[in-house]
Amino acid sequence: MDALGELTAALPDHVVVTDPERIEKYRWDRSQDPNTGTPVAVVRAEDAEQVQVAVRWAAAHRVPVVPRGAGSGLSGGSSAVDGGIVISLERMTAVEIDPTCQVAVVEPGAYNKDVKAAAAEQGLWYPPDPSSYEFCSIGGNVATNAGGLCCVKYGVTTDYVLGLDVVLADGSLVRLGGKRIKDVAGLSLLKLFVGSEGTLGIVTRAILRLVPAQQERSTLVATFGSPTVAAEAVVAIRSRLRPSMLELMDQPSIRAVEQHRSMGLDVDAGALLVAQSDAPGTSRTEEIALMEKACRDTGATEVFVTDDADEGEQFVQARRMVIPAVEELGALMLEDVGVPVPRLPELLAAVAEVAREQDLSIPVIAHAGDGNTHPLIVVPRDDDAAHLRALQAFDDIMHAAIRLDGTITGEHGVGRTKKSALPEQLGPDVLALNQRVKDALDPDGILNPGAIL
Amino acid sequence: MDALGELTAALPDHVVVTDPERIEKYRWDRSQDPNTGTPVAVVRAEDAEQVQVAVRWAAAHRVPVVPRGAGSGLSGGSSAVDGGIVISLERMTAVEIDPTCQVAVVEPGAYNKDVKAAAAEQGLWYPPDPSSYEFCSIGGNVATNAGGLCCVKYGVTTDYVLGLDVVLADGSLVRLGGKRIKDVAGLSLLKLFVGSEGTLGIVTRAILRLVPAQQERSTLVATFGSPTVAAEAVVAIRSRLRPSMLELMDQPSIRAVEQHRSMGLDVDAGALLVAQSDAPGTSRTEEIALMEKACRDTGATEVFVTDDADEGEQFVQARRMVIPAVEELGALMLEDVGVPVPRLPELLAAVAEVAREQDLSIPVIAHAGDGNTHPLIVVPRDDDAAHLRALQAFDDIMHAAIRLDGTITGEHGVGRTKKSALPEQLGPDVLALNQRVKDALDPDGILNPGAIL
Repeated sequence: MDALGELTAALPDHVVVTDPERIEKYRWDRSQDPNTGTPVAVVRAEDAEQVQVAVRWAAAHRVPVVPRGAGSGLSGGSSAVDGGIVISLERMTAVEIDPTCQVAVVEPGAYNKDVKAAAAEQGLWYPPDPSSYEFCSIGGNVATNAGGLCCVKYGVTTDYVLGLDVVLADGSLVRLGGKRIKDVAGLSLLKLFVGSEGTLGIVTRAILRLVPAQQERSTLVATFGSPTVAAEAVVAIRSRLRPSMLELMDQPSIRAVEQHRSMGLDVDAGALLVAQSDAPGTSRTEEIALMEKACRDTGATEVFVTDDADEGEQFVQARRMVIPAVEELGALMLEDVGVPVPRLPELLAAVAEVAREQDLSIPVIAHAGDGNTHPLIVVPRDDDAAHLRALQAFDDIMHAAIRLDGTITGEHGVGRTKKSALPEQLGPDVLALNQRVKDALDPDGILNPGAIL
Repeated sequence: MDALGELTAALPDHVVVTDPERIEKYRWDRSQDPNTGTPVAVVRAEDAEQVQVAVRWAAAHRVPVVPRGAGSGLSGGSSAVDGGIVISLERMTAVEIDPTCQVAVVEPGAYNKDVKAAAAEQGLWYPPDPSSYEFCSIGGNVATNAGGLCCVKYGVTTDYVLGLDVVLADGSLVRLGGKRIKDVAGLSLLKLFVGSEGTLGIVTRAILRLVPAQQERSTLVATFGSPTVAAEAVVAIRSRLRPSMLELMDQPSIRAVEQHRSMGLDVDAGALLVAQSDAPGTSRTEEIALMEKACRDTGATEVFVTDDADEGEQFVQARRMVIPAVEELGALMLEDVGVPVPRLPELLAAVAEVAREQDLSIPVIAHAGDGNTHPLIVVPRDDDAAHLRALQAFDDIMHAAIRLDGTITGEHGVGRTKKSALPEQLGPDVLALNQRVKDALDPDGILNPGAIL
């Protein structure tokens, strides 16, 4: 029996996909990485044991394994590898809420929104909220240490991971952490697997911390003459407050949204801040008032405040709509660079400079309160020269972030599309340290080879 | 020149201590580990470079290195090793606040309270608050991933670490993370070093996240017939709320405090809960009312509420006073076991059972809202039989916690005194994984050998 025959024999028929047509969609994630490969098979695992069977087989034959959740990744972390297999977790979608422990026990294929919904039924809340929360999986969230809009106050995925089941490179399964809230027994391996993008192991179950349901929110929308001025308002706000949301859209983003679907945004504004406070009682009014003052003092042209939840949600929806709206303007290269909050104005200026230099449209949205920006490089379709300039812009923006004491990725992960800039950010010693840990846990390098390192 | 001569020659005279009398106090941490060793020298480093010089020397000569902060550790993580050196960070105490970034840049020898004080000057707050915050160092806090009283709402040390400078086993220094809030570039090595108890590297600088100053607090004190009933109230509260403090004291703890210094506690109460809410505005009243109802419904004998900060602080002080008060009753073996919150009543019952079986007094205090308890095993002085029974009780309590899906250490670390129970908690596979990471980062095993693994 050939190697592939061994795999199909070891798993139920409906689990292993080898038909090239059916394989096609498992080759890509949302980054549409042009260098993606073609796997020999996709294992659509139904449980942890099937993941173990597949990894044991891969280990025996030294076959690359690419784990895959919902395929919504933006850095090519789930691009397939030629001759490898993809292990898809899309069928493992169970979500179980333990309200007394205030935790969710979740399989990796479950969507973020499903965890939120199940928690809400018990009056609980799972805060991390990537813009893609309606179609991204918890496995992917854990793999990238995903962030989102509420992170400015509520932190990122790793802050909510209490336990993980992980299938290691040899196919063994380890159970890390549990439903206990505090646990310092042994090295922090749990946290090491969060953000490891499938290069150290495959998560088959996560225990996630929940918190009491979020309080009512008030929303502030402020317009500014330019993104840089808006960013200065962000710096002023963040030096005093930790609002529950602090998002930025620049003029091209606003206009893309209005073109896509009219949301009543001011298309003449140089930039827009959408901020929320969920502080209870009168504190909410106070927080909003402080933010309003900071905006006006910095030079906001207009400030609008609403306590109406639906009205506020419309602005948040407008913000979430930017990426699909910009995708209509051309192919998209999505950046994810971040800097310390006070350097946000400089980063935005640097992105504008790159856009000018490369003669490209680069709308910018930002989880501004965290200093995390998403410059959206628009690549005119069927324009090879523009494509090359876009690649250059993608690199230039990462280098600009590094120069500003920042990072090439705040929440999307390094994957394959940002790998080339990682050495510059980390430096040779930290890079070598990453490799040592990788080698210790995956000596044959079968787990998601080519991602991160 | 002999090896030690090389070390003294490589560093300023006042940095290397070899006088046995002066060395003595560097042999012990607060756990008073009877198996501590005698080092050949203590390096009282003044900066990261001196730490590097010492570690390079140790690496060249394969000499064990024990890093040491304030020596307030409770698990023997800083017990000295025969023939090794101690690197004391006590002289590296700089604290610098960057208010615009809302971070503190801190040397490892600075005390937790110094960071809190410096942050407070800027209207900011560093939440983690071990009971020992007045005399424990940030380096130790990072090494153990220290917790405290406010963790039930505000999380533990790792949640606040944005950056670390770490001297590795070969003496090289790596800089991980930075002042950026979100950063997922590369593996989560930053989080791996937090809680590694000096076995993977020596922290020479930490960048800590700060948050806006804590709001006013209201305090609730409730008495119960027994610790188990009090624990049931905790379960009821925690299934709905996340108060900013939820501490438990049992009757022997209460009585020890009252004997030590009268604080007006009810010595006939079977147990006491001290809870706080720092929710803003009317939400505070609501949270306190919900907690009061949960206490009364569970069978509290008395409930007292105060909005007066000083009055509330007295109860918190009484809670913090338990350990010194119990220390007057005999030698102390301090436990740190934790369980998922709903299993807290079972854990307290198990501890009581161990106390009966071993005929020992074991007062219990708990960060109850996190399921983290500190059974305080009182060992009558100069009673060898009781000492043996106490050792047995120490083990029995750890095993009881493991049986209840819990942990042998919630916040103090494994160090050397809890090492024997670690294999049972982690199991062989996770233990082996710990060892693989350790070996990858410290192949010659010179960093804090004997701690954790």
